[in-house]
Amino acid sequence: MEVIIMKELLEGNEKLAEENREYFSDRHILAVNLMGAPGAGKTTFISAIAKELSDIPVGVIEGDIASSIDAENLEKQGIHASQINTCGECHLDSRVIRDGADQIDMKNAIVFIENVGNLICPAEFDLGESVRLLAASVPEGDDKAFKYVPMFSYADVVVLTKCDLKEAVGFDSENFQKGLRAVSQAPLFEVSLKKGQPAAGIKAVADYLKEKYNQMK
Amino acid sequence: MEVIIMKELLEGNEKLAEENREYFSDRHILAVNLMGAPGAGKTTFISAIAKELSDIPVGVIEGDIASSIDAENLEKQGIHASQINTCGECHLDSRVIRDGADQIDMKNAIVFIENVGNLICPAEFDLGESVRLLAASVPEGDDKAFKYVPMFSYADVVVLTKCDLKEAVGFDSENFQKGLRAVSQAPLFEVSLKKGQPAAGIKAVADYLKEKYNQMK
Repeated sequence: MEVIIMKELLEGNEKLAEENREYFSDRHILAVNLMGAPGAGKTTFISAIAKELSDIPVGVIEGDIASSIDAENLEKQGIHASQINTCGECHLDSRVIRDGADQIDMKNAIVFIENVGNLICPAEFDLGESVRLLAASVPEGDDKAFKYVPMFSYADVVVLTKCDLKEAVGFDSENFQKGLRAVSQAPLFEVSLKKGQPAAGIKAVADYLKEKYNQMK
Repeated sequence: MEVIIMKELLEGNEKLAEENREYFSDRHILAVNLMGAPGAGKTTFISAIAKELSDIPVGVIEGDIASSIDAENLEKQGIHASQINTCGECHLDSRVIRDGADQIDMKNAIVFIENVGNLICPAEFDLGESVRLLAASVPEGDDKAFKYVPMFSYADVVVLTKCDLKEAVGFDSENFQKGLRAVSQAPLFEVSLKKGQPAAGIKAVADYLKEKYNQMK
């Protein structure tokens, strides 16, 4: 019984995901599902890449189980953002994405969907996005791809954040690559986005997304 | 319909949680449900506190969605550990805990249940534990208690890990306390358990758990 209900829920989500995909396509929106653990640096990443994508409008659909801290911070930087509170739910689904998209009401843009901080559950929910971007942070450890296989294999692209902390935490880049490559061929970018220091590595991610954006019909 | 099924699942879990509680009580086991985000330093914390609790036997029930890296590392250090793979599930439930407890088969001990790295879902599942210990790490950021309210209010005790990184990541201790105190009166301990450096702060956590252990009938 449980499995059937889950399947129905997932099927319902799939249908809405297809509708979202059409909605984004019609409006020439590259929708990026940004996933990662709590504190992986997802909001900081959005701030930094929005600056780098200056010629393309950027919107954000923020997901959090509570609070509107992230959307408020982004709005302060002039980034158009809507906030979804999931009221305890551990992931975003396609239904709420459409609400968020309607709220920011954009066209010809890159829209980041900042998922709830969770390295597990969001990998089960297609949101109708074009790109699945996983932010994994250095302090989480170099063994994460071995342990969180569904998420690491779900991602189209992986951004390793907080690379300035590699030495401080004894991060083994080789072991991280080994874990990642065991489950995924996704391109890997490394960034350092520490406050008060020049952003490193973000241009390459912006170029990757620009190319995806320009490839859209 | 969905809600009813969820309720039944949770009710089933509640019943098994009570059975676990009796099982642990009969064997004079202090069961500690150790929760935290991926990379919060849960396994490192167990290694360090096991040394500090040297006069009390320590066992570990390890939960991961995949791999047995953590249990293997603990076994290498002579800590009795069983590994539960949740096969994608985002939390441990009471049923698997009993399996893990049977496997390590201990009495008169402190048993750590290392939950799946997830700052959301585990807060919905009572495992029959005596203590709910949340490991929150400095690099996750000082705003986490504002955002992950259910988990922070669920914890009986909070251990802030990786405190040696406070300066490197610009962690605002006051803001962290503010978020925590808005939802919880749980005692807060701060630890630094960096490899190659003396463990700082762990004795106070060990004393706290010893007291809980000695208070058991």
